[in-house]
Amino acid sequence: MARVFNFASGPAVLPEEVLLQVQSELLDWGGRGFSVMESSHRADEFMALMSENETLLRQLLAVPVNYRILFMQGGGHQQFAMVPLNLLGPRMHADYIITGHWSERAAEEARRFCNATIAASTLAEGCTRLPRRDEIKLDPQAAYVYYCPNETIHGVEFDFIPASGAVPLVADASSSFLSRPMPIEKFGVLYACAQKNFGPAGLTAVIIREDLIGHCSPRWPSILDYKSYAEVKSLWNTPATFAVYVANLVLKWLRAQGGVLAIEARNIEKARLLYGCIDGSGGYYINRVEKNARSRMNVPYSLSDERRTDEFLSIAATRGLVQLKGHRSVGGIRASIYNAMPVAGVQALVTHMQDFARAHG
Amino acid sequence: MARVFNFASGPAVLPEEVLLQVQSELLDWGGRGFSVMESSHRADEFMALMSENETLLRQLLAVPVNYRILFMQGGGHQQFAMVPLNLLGPRMHADYIITGHWSERAAEEARRFCNATIAASTLAEGCTRLPRRDEIKLDPQAAYVYYCPNETIHGVEFDFIPASGAVPLVADASSSFLSRPMPIEKFGVLYACAQKNFGPAGLTAVIIREDLIGHCSPRWPSILDYKSYAEVKSLWNTPATFAVYVANLVLKWLRAQGGVLAIEARNIEKARLLYGCIDGSGGYYINRVEKNARSRMNVPYSLSDERRTDEFLSIAATRGLVQLKGHRSVGGIRASIYNAMPVAGVQALVTHMQDFARAHG
Repeated sequence: MARVFNFASGPAVLPEEVLLQVQSELLDWGGRGFSVMESSHRADEFMALMSENETLLRQLLAVPVNYRILFMQGGGHQQFAMVPLNLLGPRMHADYIITGHWSERAAEEARRFCNATIAASTLAEGCTRLPRRDEIKLDPQAAYVYYCPNETIHGVEFDFIPASGAVPLVADASSSFLSRPMPIEKFGVLYACAQKNFGPAGLTAVIIREDLIGHCSPRWPSILDYKSYAEVKSLWNTPATFAVYVANLVLKWLRAQGGVLAIEARNIEKARLLYGCIDGSGGYYINRVEKNARSRMNVPYSLSDERRTDEFLSIAATRGLVQLKGHRSVGGIRASIYNAMPVAGVQALVTHMQDFARAHG
Repeated sequence: MARVFNFASGPAVLPEEVLLQVQSELLDWGGRGFSVMESSHRADEFMALMSENETLLRQLLAVPVNYRILFMQGGGHQQFAMVPLNLLGPRMHADYIITGHWSERAAEEARRFCNATIAASTLAEGCTRLPRRDEIKLDPQAAYVYYCPNETIHGVEFDFIPASGAVPLVADASSSFLSRPMPIEKFGVLYACAQKNFGPAGLTAVIIREDLIGHCSPRWPSILDYKSYAEVKSLWNTPATFAVYVANLVLKWLRAQGGVLAIEARNIEKARLLYGCIDGSGGYYINRVEKNARSRMNVPYSLSDERRTDEFLSIAATRGLVQLKGHRSVGGIRASIYNAMPVAGVQALVTHMQDFARAHG
């Protein structure tokens, strides 16, 4: 059937131009007579992809020279463990700012290894706002401060960067990565899984200040030591090679769109359209997140008459608007509108929302 | 260009029928209007793929009911750590049988956590043979016995299964997985990365006797606990979804070929052709592995005049025979002839070898 508008929260929509190129060379990658999936990860042409991905990220995000970019498998869950194992050193505690499911999961994993102090939390209030700066209680002796700039499930995005002073700041940036500029120099570690904004699942990028590498004890598994990857240009083990290749095309696509500033402008416009529809619906659609905390990437909302949710979703599907169901822990609707979601997709969703409200209001 | 014959050691050749299907539905998976790469891993239709992969493996390998099949990321290197972390329990040592690079790497990683005793090793002799049964010194108190049934780099494959008695036997079966029947009931854990015989890189299958799950201490990262995956049908974190999908097609392809016994017959024939050419070359081509230890999957060999290796490889490439270069630690030639390598590919390689020897002999 025709391509639909896909609002999945991740794995998520990819640029159609990228998929067309993947398709065209699926059996014959760059005229080599085999698929990129069939290439050795140690072949020169594959290693060139790995290097180019680093260069592209460096350019797109203006990564300072004293930062390394590492690629690995394992997604966020692997980082939940790697961050404490690599950053604790002799210290026994770290500060966690909890604004939703993913920062909470990270703190939970860290508690296997240290005291993961809750520096601030909005969990008890349902994660509909950001902690105020004066609510965040940071310990200057902590090994690091951890937060999640954009919570995918709750649709809460920071509009400021917590001031951690001399303590390294760690960000799980998965779902807002490359959607807006990030001042990398303010972070100790900033990591992102590919499956939101830069590729298929199976690949994680870790941007890390180089002095933070090399402090993982050898009593921990070497697969969880950033140094394992840093020493060999991230070819420590076999990467998910196909994901590396698709990420390469996505990063080039982003550069061709004009880079992160240009995509940010488009993302602002998409978010404006969608939140505008919700706010203009006279209460028919409800998003409970405080306005300054609203995510540009993930827009969860509910119908005032929740019994109509399934009907809303099934009519949406007939109009080519899919994967809109809210996370099972929250319910309702969630529209994820990552970089690769065109403005036309959001317009089509808004039209459906208006039509549906009119018909059933 | 036309498809070539690809002898890469992994990531490796995939069945052309599979790649054609992947290509045909790359932008429109099963008529859904989006790519499988863009599907939520929690969508019913994706979870069905995960279940079906388990069912297919269960059937293809006659996996007993008291075994679980888990899927995860991280490849062999992750298993090198997971095996000791999950199987040691209160014990402090395990037995390792070393027959090449990969069993050695596994033992090296295990030494972070326990005494990894060398129960037998052929390293000093260059890994060209198997240890005799009477050379393997196993401790009945060991937590487990570890070995690698097929060493990809050295081209050494076991023609017997070490008798570990009541001690769980662990096999890194990556490069011979699904190439021949394996009596799963003899193993405690048998694992394999996808990128040799069942899919693209990024996916690992772990077949584990269920009583061995649940013994990982909570002081270890949860990503390395088999229980994390066993409790949630391997959807503990986001898998490399595209690899899961391609593996599904490869497993169905294998079933359509007649299953593991049928593919084994083909693999025996391919190995017979290639070793026959080497042995019949009057010493022009040399494989140093003892005959009973020769791998059916990975055939390393050298030219008696090693200075001609580059010329051999470049002429091979012009004939559509690629990725034949030996591993950097061994040099020479290596032809990996996994399940998806057609007999015609081996025949073409043999013809090239004969022509080259005739022209330069």
